[in-house]
Amino acid sequence: MSGRDRLIYLPLGGAGEIGMNAYVYGYGKPGKERLILVDLGIAFPDMDTTPGVDIIVPDITWLTENLNRLEAVFITHGHEDHVGGVGHLYPQIKKPIHCRAFTANLARRKLQEKGQDPKVVHTAPSFPQMIDAGPFKVGFLPVSHSIPESNALVIDSPAGRIIHTGDFKIDRSPVVGQPFSDDLWAEAARPGVRALVCDSTNVFSKNEGRSEAEVAPNLKPLVQSATGMFVATTFASNVARLQSLAIAGEAAGRSICLMGRAMRRMTEAAREEGILTDFPKTISPEEAADIPRENLMLIVTGSQGERRAASAQLSRGKYFGMELKEGDTFLFSSKTIPGNEKEVARIMNNLSELGVDVVTDDDGLYHVSGHANRPDLEFMHNLTQPQIVVPMHGEHRHLREHAKVADAGGRIGIVAPNGTMIDLAGNEPRVVDHVETGRTYLDGSALVGQFDGVVRDRIRMALNGHVVVAVMVDDDNEILEDTWVDIRGLPEQVRGSASLADIMEEHLAGQLARVNTRTANDDEALEGLIVKGVRKVAQDEIGKRPEVTVLITRLSAE
Amino acid sequence: MSGRDRLIYLPLGGAGEIGMNAYVYGYGKPGKERLILVDLGIAFPDMDTTPGVDIIVPDITWLTENLNRLEAVFITHGHEDHVGGVGHLYPQIKKPIHCRAFTANLARRKLQEKGQDPKVVHTAPSFPQMIDAGPFKVGFLPVSHSIPESNALVIDSPAGRIIHTGDFKIDRSPVVGQPFSDDLWAEAARPGVRALVCDSTNVFSKNEGRSEAEVAPNLKPLVQSATGMFVATTFASNVARLQSLAIAGEAAGRSICLMGRAMRRMTEAAREEGILTDFPKTISPEEAADIPRENLMLIVTGSQGERRAASAQLSRGKYFGMELKEGDTFLFSSKTIPGNEKEVARIMNNLSELGVDVVTDDDGLYHVSGHANRPDLEFMHNLTQPQIVVPMHGEHRHLREHAKVADAGGRIGIVAPNGTMIDLAGNEPRVVDHVETGRTYLDGSALVGQFDGVVRDRIRMALNGHVVVAVMVDDDNEILEDTWVDIRGLPEQVRGSASLADIMEEHLAGQLARVNTRTANDDEALEGLIVKGVRKVAQDEIGKRPEVTVLITRLSAE
Repeated sequence: MSGRDRLIYLPLGGAGEIGMNAYVYGYGKPGKERLILVDLGIAFPDMDTTPGVDIIVPDITWLTENLNRLEAVFITHGHEDHVGGVGHLYPQIKKPIHCRAFTANLARRKLQEKGQDPKVVHTAPSFPQMIDAGPFKVGFLPVSHSIPESNALVIDSPAGRIIHTGDFKIDRSPVVGQPFSDDLWAEAARPGVRALVCDSTNVFSKNEGRSEAEVAPNLKPLVQSATGMFVATTFASNVARLQSLAIAGEAAGRSICLMGRAMRRMTEAAREEGILTDFPKTISPEEAADIPRENLMLIVTGSQGERRAASAQLSRGKYFGMELKEGDTFLFSSKTIPGNEKEVARIMNNLSELGVDVVTDDDGLYHVSGHANRPDLEFMHNLTQPQIVVPMHGEHRHLREHAKVADAGGRIGIVAPNGTMIDLAGNEPRVVDHVETGRTYLDGSALVGQFDGVVRDRIRMALNGHVVVAVMVDDDNEILEDTWVDIRGLPEQVRGSASLADIMEEHLAGQLARVNTRTANDDEALEGLIVKGVRKVAQDEIGKRPEVTVLITRLSAE
Repeated sequence: MSGRDRLIYLPLGGAGEIGMNAYVYGYGKPGKERLILVDLGIAFPDMDTTPGVDIIVPDITWLTENLNRLEAVFITHGHEDHVGGVGHLYPQIKKPIHCRAFTANLARRKLQEKGQDPKVVHTAPSFPQMIDAGPFKVGFLPVSHSIPESNALVIDSPAGRIIHTGDFKIDRSPVVGQPFSDDLWAEAARPGVRALVCDSTNVFSKNEGRSEAEVAPNLKPLVQSATGMFVATTFASNVARLQSLAIAGEAAGRSICLMGRAMRRMTEAAREEGILTDFPKTISPEEAADIPRENLMLIVTGSQGERRAASAQLSRGKYFGMELKEGDTFLFSSKTIPGNEKEVARIMNNLSELGVDVVTDDDGLYHVSGHANRPDLEFMHNLTQPQIVVPMHGEHRHLREHAKVADAGGRIGIVAPNGTMIDLAGNEPRVVDHVETGRTYLDGSALVGQFDGVVRDRIRMALNGHVVVAVMVDDDNEILEDTWVDIRGLPEQVRGSASLADIMEEHLAGQLARVNTRTANDDEALEGLIVKGVRKVAQDEIGKRPEVTVLITRLSAE
């Protein structure tokens, strides 16, 4: 191993997936690099792969094993996939957290919710001011996205400058917050950029991205023409959109009521940080109940069909005294994130049954993306002129495509999925290590490892059902006749009316009557025999192979 | 109740959902109408709502209770959501099944697989020839769709003619099969159409639909320019597409190999019925293994990301001796059905990791839909000039939107979701009854009712985990100390290293030691106590509320 100082990049999450961003940078002698962590986000579970799980955080074992090398944490912006892990993982890290004011406001709330000290979060100034962190100097370079105060990071090391874009789009009229500043970015790029570590989400979108400002002019006539109640849902963190919606509502003579916890938290944080200055007055749901529906606009959470969010609740019936009906309008000022299609459709169908007119963004009128499209990525490459482009924030296919875009522009594009440690200090980026990465599940209040078998067992029970057998063995190694079978998640009755549990008990009784003393004395052998017997009956009767739990109780003479 | 004869329409499946089509028509005195059934399809399960289920069929209880009134079954075309239920439900129906030759071929295979007599399927002639079925005469009116020999049904009753479109598009150059014939449809409409029961799938698509013939010219240059192996996936039943793909492959000097069971079944049926006449020669996977990859084209199943289909297998590694690698091309000549996005993306990412170039239909070059878009629906309304339009084959929002289209055209549109019986004989369509409908799950080899609790229990185990407690009570109503706890789908260790099962056992031991004889003697009370105790520990330790099964064994003195 060379003794030369390395400049390493190591994604622990976010590279090879969209979600739970966590990127490590390091500088120093091999294996002794001083480290910083950029972002600490979460991902959301689904029934297919993570039933029952509450949220997913990156497995940061590598980081905790190298904690003495970690200088600080930098959070680019306030989306859950970037800041959401702070509350859950801070206790394992305990290093200063740097972010801009709005993100800091959100991060502090998260720490407080978990009983942690919010003072560990430091409000950072913006580039060209820089923060010292070991061998690094880090600057927060403002960039447009779909939440206030998003930032790229300018990361200076003795081996050169890295720009880590965070999530971004090129928006020169973002409605809320600073427009994308070509001048500021040119200034950041001027000393030369060794590597651009760059958002890849929309690399497959071929047209130039559109500005947030394009939405408002379409919202106004829509709200104006609505007759009944007007409800709009969007991403709660898209404060600019909330403002455009509220202004359109106010212009149409409607009172604005925000519904849903995230909606209130975001606007509260934005107000506290002085970001929401032009936002119309809002009323509470209680006040809204007294206002004629044609004079009311609800802005609600749940654009992704989340079962407990306001949209879903309203689609199912009364919610905080509100009830939708024929003649009302419901706008999805959002796109459906892949994987949420069925949940969103369920809400739309519920609304349809209520007679509510649903308006979506099918024609691109009522939503714009927060991420840079392919031409915008090319623009970014050209603006910053990096030697190396490291695509991040994307599934493997996004990273690969983005690397191709970089190559086509005459730069070095490198695909480095989670766990790939690359050294950016040499002439060419070089893979120097592979690190175990993965997902940790927050399940209730417990952290569960991806490979602990907990979720695997849940999935198996869901697919196959669960049969429980209780068997007793007396102190002479005789199996008692009272073997009990209980089934869950399998049909109780088979062949018309016979009880599946009874058939299993009968089969086991016959089987166990023939068991010799040695087997009866051997838990493992006895369990194996019973599992096999249960599965045989299940296969014969219902064509399934259930999960089986066997409880063997050995009675001892007292 | 009026004694006037009714002409009833009753969807048992397919109206309010996309899938498991089953529509009843009846004519006669109220409650004594003679019936026919149109289509008998399946729907596909998902992990969110139907884990472990194999397929979903409509609950046909109403039909089986009125079986003496049922004359016959008519199947419009060979898609699984129209014919897929025949094998599973025929034993409950036992009436003649009518379909055109290709569909009959598929239906007979399904019956044979289930050990039923394939002779109950009758090959029908096409309109203007009609089949007698009680008070009805039924004609198979050819229509273009995305599978050979799709048909609308012309259903004549003493109260007038109904046209049931089945799935359709307006395609005047469908590559395989008959073009849409304006003349034939005009002839069918000439006597006057009382009701058009009409496909609603694409009502939200605003542009005129495109012809299958538009795909082939785009395929040729794509295949021509590929260097490595070329793999294409599409819906196996889209025989026209298979042919276009195969011809493009042949033109590029490639041997064609079909992979996947459905792919072979469909082409076999199409060949047997004389539909596939221009299809290039194909080779077996064994032969393909000997051919240089640049001279090979695979056409494979699994466009929807199905885990066991050829696409998924190829994306994971070797399959029938084939292995994809850098430089190969994989084309999705398909669209992703809502709900399948994640599975499809998983395959694309696997392929990306292998270095395979994935081509999708993002730009509309390599796939066209098989359903009529909104302008095509308007065209159909105008062509057939029905008094009434009954939207079917759609979720509630599709039906409602389609009814609005009908209204806008000056016709009567009526939304009649599953279970809504409407009488079409009067001046206006009238809802005359609501019938219990639902879904029946084929689970292994058992049919399970939607509300039997089987699937609900599986979902609960998946979300909450499952704790099993075995407790013994002796013949003096004393609870023995050997209470056993087994957990599945919950973390085994909590607080670092303590065993969750041990903590529960300890808690229960303390609790049960204090139980009085009356409670110990009462199964229900004892179970309630234990469930509560287990949930308390789980809540305290891991913040979850698990499912709990309690097995109480009462020992009797022998």
